[in-house]
Amino acid sequence: MYHKVRKKVHVLLHPELGETKWDKIINGFIIFLIIANVIVVILETVQPLHEKYFIFFKYFDLISVIIFTIEYLLRLWSCIHETRFEHSFYGRIKYVFSVDGIIDLLAILPFYIHSIIGLDLRVLRILRLLRFLRLFRLTAYMKSARMVRNVFVKRASELKLSVVLILFLVIIASSIMYFTEHQTQPKVFTSIPATLWWAFVTLTSVGYGDMVPVTTLGKIMTAVIMLCGVAIFALPAGIITAGFLEEMQKMRQKKTIKCPNCGHSFHHEHVD
Amino acid sequence: MYHKVRKKVHVLLHPELGETKWDKIINGFIIFLIIANVIVVILETVQPLHEKYFIFFKYFDLISVIIFTIEYLLRLWSCIHETRFEHSFYGRIKYVFSVDGIIDLLAILPFYIHSIIGLDLRVLRILRLLRFLRLFRLTAYMKSARMVRNVFVKRASELKLSVVLILFLVIIASSIMYFTEHQTQPKVFTSIPATLWWAFVTLTSVGYGDMVPVTTLGKIMTAVIMLCGVAIFALPAGIITAGFLEEMQKMRQKKTIKCPNCGHSFHHEHVD
Amino acid sequence: MYHKVRKKVHVLLHPELGETKWDKIINGFIIFLIIANVIVVILETVQPLHEKYFIFFKYFDLISVIIFTIEYLLRLWSCIHETRFEHSFYGRIKYVFSVDGIIDLLAILPFYIHSIIGLDLRVLRILRLLRFLRLFRLTAYMKSARMVRNVFVKRASELKLSVVLILFLVIIASSIMYFTEHQTQPKVFTSIPATLWWAFVTLTSVGYGDMVPVTTLGKIMTAVIMLCGVAIFALPAGIITAGFLEEMQKMRQKKTIKCPNCGHSFHHEHVD
Amino acid sequence: MYHKVRKKVHVLLHPELGETKWDKIINGFIIFLIIANVIVVILETVQPLHEKYFIFFKYFDLISVIIFTIEYLLRLWSCIHETRFEHSFYGRIKYVFSVDGIIDLLAILPFYIHSIIGLDLRVLRILRLLRFLRLFRLTAYMKSARMVRNVFVKRASELKLSVVLILFLVIIASSIMYFTEHQTQPKVFTSIPATLWWAFVTLTSVGYGDMVPVTTLGKIMTAVIMLCGVAIFALPAGIITAGFLEEMQKMRQKKTIKCPNCGHSFHHEHVD
Repeated sequence: MYHKVRKKVHVLLHPELGETKWDKIINGFIIFLIIANVIVVILETVQPLHEKYFIFFKYFDLISVIIFTIEYLLRLWSCIHETRFEHSFYGRIKYVFSVDGIIDLLAILPFYIHSIIGLDLRVLRILRLLRFLRLFRLTAYMKSARMVRNVFVKRASELKLSVVLILFLVIIASSIMYFTEHQTQPKVFTSIPATLWWAFVTLTSVGYGDMVPVTTLGKIMTAVIMLCGVAIFALPAGIITAGFLEEMQKMRQKKTIKCPNCGHSFHHEHVD
Repeated sequence: MYHKVRKKVHVLLHPELGETKWDKIINGFIIFLIIANVIVVILETVQPLHEKYFIFFKYFDLISVIIFTIEYLLRLWSCIHETRFEHSFYGRIKYVFSVDGIIDLLAILPFYIHSIIGLDLRVLRILRLLRFLRLFRLTAYMKSARMVRNVFVKRASELKLSVVLILFLVIIASSIMYFTEHQTQPKVFTSIPATLWWAFVTLTSVGYGDMVPVTTLGKIMTAVIMLCGVAIFALPAGIITAGFLEEMQKMRQKKTIKCPNCGHSFHHEHVD
Repeated sequence: MYHKVRKKVHVLLHPELGETKWDKIINGFIIFLIIANVIVVILETVQPLHEKYFIFFKYFDLISVIIFTIEYLLRLWSCIHETRFEHSFYGRIKYVFSVDGIIDLLAILPFYIHSIIGLDLRVLRILRLLRFLRLFRLTAYMKSARMVRNVFVKRASELKLSVVLILFLVIIASSIMYFTEHQTQPKVFTSIPATLWWAFVTLTSVGYGDMVPVTTLGKIMTAVIMLCGVAIFALPAGIITAGFLEEMQKMRQKKTIKCPNCGHSFHHEHVD
Repeated sequence: MYHKVRKKVHVLLHPELGETKWDKIINGFIIFLIIANVIVVILETVQPLHEKYFIFFKYFDLISVIIFTIEYLLRLWSCIHETRFEHSFYGRIKYVFSVDGIIDLLAILPFYIHSIIGLDLRVLRILRLLRFLRLFRLTAYMKSARMVRNVFVKRASELKLSVVLILFLVIIASSIMYFTEHQTQPKVFTSIPATLWWAFVTLTSVGYGDMVPVTTLGKIMTAVIMLCGVAIFALPAGIITAGFLEEMQKMRQKKTIKCPNCGHSFHHEHVD
């Protein structure tokens, strides 16, 4: 009986497992509560709203934390129905330190820390946003989410390399610009670390206009740097695009191959 | 006879069906009138032009609405020659609430609302622009338009996911920047909703320069956020590119090849 | 003899045909002269340089025009050795109105118009730049140049469609922003045509910062417009990338196909 | 014995060759020292830090140069174990003028030039950054690094062409804008060379806002130029993406497949 209830709770909290309406309703409510929480955290920073709805914000936060705490405890209690958290003690410890468990805990912990030891970490409430990512476990989005994740995971090495190349270009660009602009604009291009900001703003093509080279040499160097930037920043974009295409082709690739030896037909993914 | 005229009218209003010159002339005239209308709506907002050509603009609008109204009524009358609007009563109701019907109605409704109940919705006249999209039904552009549409429809799930990721990054970036910049620039980074504007302007690499971080920590966080932005904003671009390539490959694979030896026709994928 | 000299001149002016050193030297000299001309036109606009080197610039232009004129006349004289300009009279007329002929004429005509009827079109001397494009006829760059050209020609229909979509977004964005910002900033967002400038600057992510929305509604609408802009401006980039890939695959595709009927092996491009 | 020690030294300095822990430790230390050097060069330009830690920076540089000099001499001594530097005299000369040798020398030469002839080239210490690139020789990154390199090398011709097209657009855009804006803003658009800066800043979509067209014609021309810029700047991005995809496909095609029926191994392209 107890076992059955716990199993039931586990299914209700994991809508990707169950088929009843209730798990969808519960999940929908939690998603709604997360979004409402994020909106409240955002709106709370608006001074007039904060003054006017102070009490409402406070109670909304309290109720949310109560619900999230109950949910967290239920998840902790029922998680052992998942294969990876099977053991009744170590499984739960494992859950607490799993990515999901940490995200769930981060959503409620700041409240308790504030209540007990007075440390104001309410800023971290914005992390409740992370709980929203759970949505992509649902069947409808799972394929796309896995595709996006695969692109970043499989191309991690190339993406890391392009980040290193970007940082290289940024450092070299900053050094060049510091030495060409420092004398003319000593209060703008004060040091290389200050010029790093210029390099990031320019190479990502944001261009706020708070630091602009004025010397002819500085402008020529910037033109060269910007052209290099176009090529270097095309790298991550190209890697991601190529990665996507590969994922899409894999998905489509249900072509039959014939073995040149025995003539047996089989699907490629069988052997990959 | 009456049936024949209605059928004729239907063909005349749908240049993709007919083969005579007249449907092209009528369609060309309507396209021209739509473009002229859009230009007039745009120019009307220029104060000196509005004062000088007030009468001309007024009559041009009146005549346009009369022509569009006649066209709308003719379309409503003749639409039942299309299979999806076949029923003489429900078919027409269906047409009124179809995407095409609503766009056609939106082009004339603001005028009548203004004339009858005085509510000034002339702003909506810019929606006549939407009628221009009808152009892409023509054979010359149909293939390209369908390709573009297919890319967005088939990749909808991935595109939605990337929009969610963009919104995530925007919200997290705003929260971080609010907490690092608020104290130094309380009049610029007033609240998280105000900082959301900064995040959009920065991450889309527009960079107006009306909100710029000045603290060292804020600048470092911005650099990290901009690098993440490059990766996240490469997602929709990559998805669209990959989608295009898939569509193009599909189109190519449909071509029949003829063997130069025996003249046998076959599809390329047969032998791949 | 006369025929032979003309043939020789033709080969000397078309380095992609000949194998001697002389055509490369002549061509190299002309390319150098074009680049020098463009640099002179650019530098002439710098006031101090113009005052100091006035005489030099004048004579350099004179000598360049003389050389370009001789070259033009030689090309006109010898062009009939090309198959498409074969006829001794109509062939030369055809050359004058060919793209190459017009570009060559544009390089010298402004000088003569200025000398004879006094009309100052020296501005057009910058068009001598176009003659530089001849460089891409050389074998080394021909393959790449043809690939780039193919991408734009074959994907013309999709690119046109994406330009139309961009113009759509620009017009709709301008209308929305005019109606949300005009009342608050009547001197900045004066009319829809003025706001079109804002829309172009924002959607291409240039963001000069000369026109920035200040109302909350305007900022929200801008965020939505910018997100749409990311998707719409990814279209041409995606089309060009996909086009490139197709060209590259075609070049590689020397795979043999077997006809399923008679077993004859042949290359795909044979039948395309 | 002497030969064996030299061989050992060579392996220790090339972690991609050896299998012991020591080469990794030595290499790790050198990489760490390079990064520390780059950070010191960057921080030294911050005035307060420079004043406070002057002595530290000086000794850190001295020690670094000593270590780098020893390393350089050891590399020079042991390089003859590489096939390309085999000869005991000419091999070493070859090493000095190889890309690696020059980078290694540039890291220490400025110090000696400063000490001996007093010429302050300490600026060049930032070039120690280049030594960091050695990291990509390691097996973990070699595949990605080679892929990125291949994309740029194999597509060099197309990339060069797109740089030429970009420069074309920049020059033409500058000339147009100079002639439309010079009269209205003679102090901003002073000359074509000055307007080149505007063209680079606009076409790379950086948009600092220091030079902005104000005339209606100038704004219309800018809109057209920006649209062309979107197409032209999509070229290098498209070329790089297509190049990546090609590399990835090549890598995948090398995988061997096993037939699940008979166990025969074969390459996929065998049967394609």
